[in-house]
Amino acid sequence: MIQELIIPVKGKGLYDITKRINTCVSNYSCSEGLATIFIRHTSASLIIQENADPAVQDDLNNWMDKLVPENDPIFSHVQEGPDDMPAHIKSALTLTSVSIPIVDGLLGLGTWQAVYLWEHRAVTPGIQRDRKLLVHASY
Amino acid sequence: MIQELIIPVKGKGLYDITKRINTCVSNYSCSEGLATIFIRHTSASLIIQENADPAVQDDLNNWMDKLVPENDPIFSHVQEGPDDMPAHIKSALTLTSVSIPIVDGLLGLGTWQAVYLWEHRAVTPGIQRDRKLLVHASY
Amino acid sequence: MIQELIIPVKGKGLYDITKRINTCVSNYSCSEGLATIFIRHTSASLIIQENADPAVQDDLNNWMDKLVPENDPIFSHVQEGPDDMPAHIKSALTLTSVSIPIVDGLLGLGTWQAVYLWEHRAVTPGIQRDRKLLVHASY
Repeated sequence: MIQELIIPVKGKGLYDITKRINTCVSNYSCSEGLATIFIRHTSASLIIQENADPAVQDDLNNWMDKLVPENDPIFSHVQEGPDDMPAHIKSALTLTSVSIPIVDGLLGLGTWQAVYLWEHRAVTPGIQRDRKLLVHASY
Repeated sequence: MIQELIIPVKGKGLYDITKRINTCVSNYSCSEGLATIFIRHTSASLIIQENADPAVQDDLNNWMDKLVPENDPIFSHVQEGPDDMPAHIKSALTLTSVSIPIVDGLLGLGTWQAVYLWEHRAVTPGIQRDRKLLVHASY
Repeated sequence: MIQELIIPVKGKGLYDITKRINTCVSNYSCSEGLATIFIRHTSASLIIQENADPAVQDDLNNWMDKLVPENDPIFSHVQEGPDDMPAHIKSALTLTSVSIPIVDGLLGLGTWQAVYLWEHRAVTPGIQRDRKLLVHASY
């Protein structure tokens, strides 16, 4: 009923996790139900967005970087690097969990929808970051 | 368990869909449970907001338009019109799914809460836009 | 299956409600499942954030206050005080419901995650504000 997904990430950006989640949902062998995806982090988040034009993802990243710039003088939480507090804020403005009805055994997404992990931390050279998600499925 | 709702929209704004969802929930004939509403689009979203003073909805729309103005020079996804990329961003900042406990056979909303579909695309003359939602109910 | 939580608040800020929700989940005596937390208000919201450095919470509050200042001349809903319309907007940008898988009988949060009620209204002298939440748990 609950499966853990580990998603390796290489710096900021949107990672399409739709296939990985659909595999979890398929394992459940249920034609109708509800899938809930939960991310166990506070500097990466979830989002459902357009899967057609990659420019949409670029624009989302650039617009969010402009809304929440690094090195804002109001930040006092700075010891984990200039990208950490912006990452917490971007996570707060997007989703930590999302629930999607299961239709015909798969996520009931619209034609142009995909599920993304939105990584908000920059690359740290030499560090491979793994993000952990829980996928719950039920009737 | 899963019902599809089609909501016709006429341009930007908040559309109260509480009654439509409560009808779905009533069809389920369950006194306690959980209802999940999911929107199958990325340029319209869901929100729960105050149902009393219509000025709240006006202010929400105007504030969001100011936060995410059209024709931002950082946008590269422009071929679907100046309102499309802002619509994706506004959707990213609000909700694609929302889950509400079912109490006494209906949505367990607070006194001043209603569920809204927030349409972020402008009217296209001659085009009737239908937005599709899935409503899942379970124990 | 559904329990009501009442959280007393004293003005703006993040209130850690993780223990209160885990108590609800424990009452359910289910090792695996899904917990959904729903807030019955539109001027307070939910958020999952870092539980380690209190400066993160200060920065979140200060950044949000800067993004949504009071007395914005575009606001027409002003009769409930200068903090009310900003509170609705802040709620719209964060969460009204959040669903968390239950693992080993408790919320399956990551190491650094806590669940917070984010109160967006200022203190009104002489008024004790109680915020009401519903916690739903299922298999």
